[in-house]
Amino acid sequence: MRGAVMHGPGDVRVEEREQPRIVEPTDAIIRVSAACVCGSDLWPYRGVETMQWPAPMGHEYAGIVEEVGDDVQDIKPGQFVVGSFWGTDNTCEICRAGYQSACVNRVPMGALGAQAELLRVPFADGTLVATPDLPADDLIPSLLSASDVLGTGWFGAVAAEAGPGKTVAVVGDGAVGLHAVLAARQLGAERIVAMSRHESRQRLAREYGATDIVEARGDEGVAAIRELTNGLGAHSVVEAVGTQESMNQAIHATRPGGHVGFVGVAHGVSLDGMDLFWSLAHLHGGPAPVRRFLPELIDLVWKREIDPGKVFDLELPLEEAADAYRAMDQREAIKVLLRP
Amino acid sequence: MRGAVMHGPGDVRVEEREQPRIVEPTDAIIRVSAACVCGSDLWPYRGVETMQWPAPMGHEYAGIVEEVGDDVQDIKPGQFVVGSFWGTDNTCEICRAGYQSACVNRVPMGALGAQAELLRVPFADGTLVATPDLPADDLIPSLLSASDVLGTGWFGAVAAEAGPGKTVAVVGDGAVGLHAVLAARQLGAERIVAMSRHESRQRLAREYGATDIVEARGDEGVAAIRELTNGLGAHSVVEAVGTQESMNQAIHATRPGGHVGFVGVAHGVSLDGMDLFWSLAHLHGGPAPVRRFLPELIDLVWKREIDPGKVFDLELPLEEAADAYRAMDQREAIKVLLRP
Repeated sequence: MRGAVMHGPGDVRVEEREQPRIVEPTDAIIRVSAACVCGSDLWPYRGVETMQWPAPMGHEYAGIVEEVGDDVQDIKPGQFVVGSFWGTDNTCEICRAGYQSACVNRVPMGALGAQAELLRVPFADGTLVATPDLPADDLIPSLLSASDVLGTGWFGAVAAEAGPGKTVAVVGDGAVGLHAVLAARQLGAERIVAMSRHESRQRLAREYGATDIVEARGDEGVAAIRELTNGLGAHSVVEAVGTQESMNQAIHATRPGGHVGFVGVAHGVSLDGMDLFWSLAHLHGGPAPVRRFLPELIDLVWKREIDPGKVFDLELPLEEAADAYRAMDQREAIKVLLRP
Repeated sequence: MRGAVMHGPGDVRVEEREQPRIVEPTDAIIRVSAACVCGSDLWPYRGVETMQWPAPMGHEYAGIVEEVGDDVQDIKPGQFVVGSFWGTDNTCEICRAGYQSACVNRVPMGALGAQAELLRVPFADGTLVATPDLPADDLIPSLLSASDVLGTGWFGAVAAEAGPGKTVAVVGDGAVGLHAVLAARQLGAERIVAMSRHESRQRLAREYGATDIVEARGDEGVAAIRELTNGLGAHSVVEAVGTQESMNQAIHATRPGGHVGFVGVAHGVSLDGMDLFWSLAHLHGGPAPVRRFLPELIDLVWKREIDPGKVFDLELPLEEAADAYRAMDQREAIKVLLRP
């Protein structure tokens, strides 16, 4: 089968890969209807992170079940399914508490390579959620988004305790930040401030529910949020970048007793203990337990109440995966969808 | 009047200070029945922190109201009162949300010097809580403890979401850590692990509700907590020290989705963003909003359901404040009560 493989920084090729087979009786094999390139795939692409080359790529996926192992009970061949970027049993104590991304048996889907025609999914019953029926083609991008970026933005908003009566600020205008805006709106937030300098992303943020846009960053961005909130800071701040500046911006823009939800993968970030102490903010984040939210997110997409698929502003055939990486690396696209 | 004044590191003297007077119409003057020395008073005593010398000392107090300003409505002369270590209006938006320690008008009581015969208390109605009647003398230590250490330990346990079904670990066996054990018990925790190496403190921890004692520290302490929790980590960890080692220990001993409540004043602490990201822990802490808990804590003491005053293992007349500092500095006492 065909699949995207990274051979080194900047070197993505679509080539023949060995066809995946059922290994464990809890596995499923799915035929991938859509996959995509994640911001985190750019770390090795840019040479910032290293991998064992050649590495199959991709951890976001939606598709149709081809085959299931003997112990799979709920997931059936022929179903359209969406899964999290972690393979998880969904039965351990950590999963049952809603933290599937730290499942004691978790498997990173990235290691299996979802940017491909076929994909082996471990713990099929625990990892996958089926749609009520085969979806209309125009729903596929939104369903795919639930696999990671929507689920991650949603977790950021939940971790920041976005809700009725709250002012929510979102640091970061990538796909995850935009989905955090959408999530804050769905969770009933009163005021949603998107921090963005890009006109096209500002427009999508407004469409997703942002009531205010702040272009300033760093200390100026914090001052702007304080000015919008009687000097107190936002109740909830979602951090969706993962840099030192964005984390500080998020913490300082939060009022005492408020909540920071951080979902940007923290690269080179260090938090000052005294600063955090005096902020009196709550801090919660990490790799999103997308599986917790999947049933609800799929339902919202299915009823066409949300349209998260709009973050895909470029769609390419899988064979052109190299162009997809290039477009995201050069910020020509927010997020690229790949059709095998 | 007589009061303790620090003239420099290691130099505490009890001397004549100017008698406090009503300055604002919201002030009260109280005659201090009991004050005490805080762990945080030792930072300047040891020369680690600097102050503007000579500095009046003390921020924990309980006593009888002598006089109130014209705008004070609830607090009356003759009442026995306990107040937080912050003077706070208790009416601003931050106070109403339960974060009085970040009141927009807060006044640090330490600047007014509670280790004295008389004390001016700003925002008397917002800062003070009266007992139902004049207390029996043996209740005074416990009432005094509510002013800071009990309220701080309680906040740590609340911030760590200690409660029914939870395993709670407490890092730190000073007065605050011991009170966090007491709080976890009151909040209904199932299992409470006190991390302590001192036999007398272990004994008090057990009396306050600890079900397990762990003597190991650092990575070994983390391993011991994991061993007690099926390898998962505690649901709730209270950090009551404020060092790099204790913060790391707290974060690493918490299970994914669990809660760290940190109330040790963070000195030289820096948190690694990636480490925090992968921990999936919740983090909350800072200067405790003691005023939020005062009515409940006073009620529990009044009904003799808790006995937090036991952390005072030395009682001295105010005139011997210098000895009180020395005893705490040299760890001869957990906490010293001063009677003016």
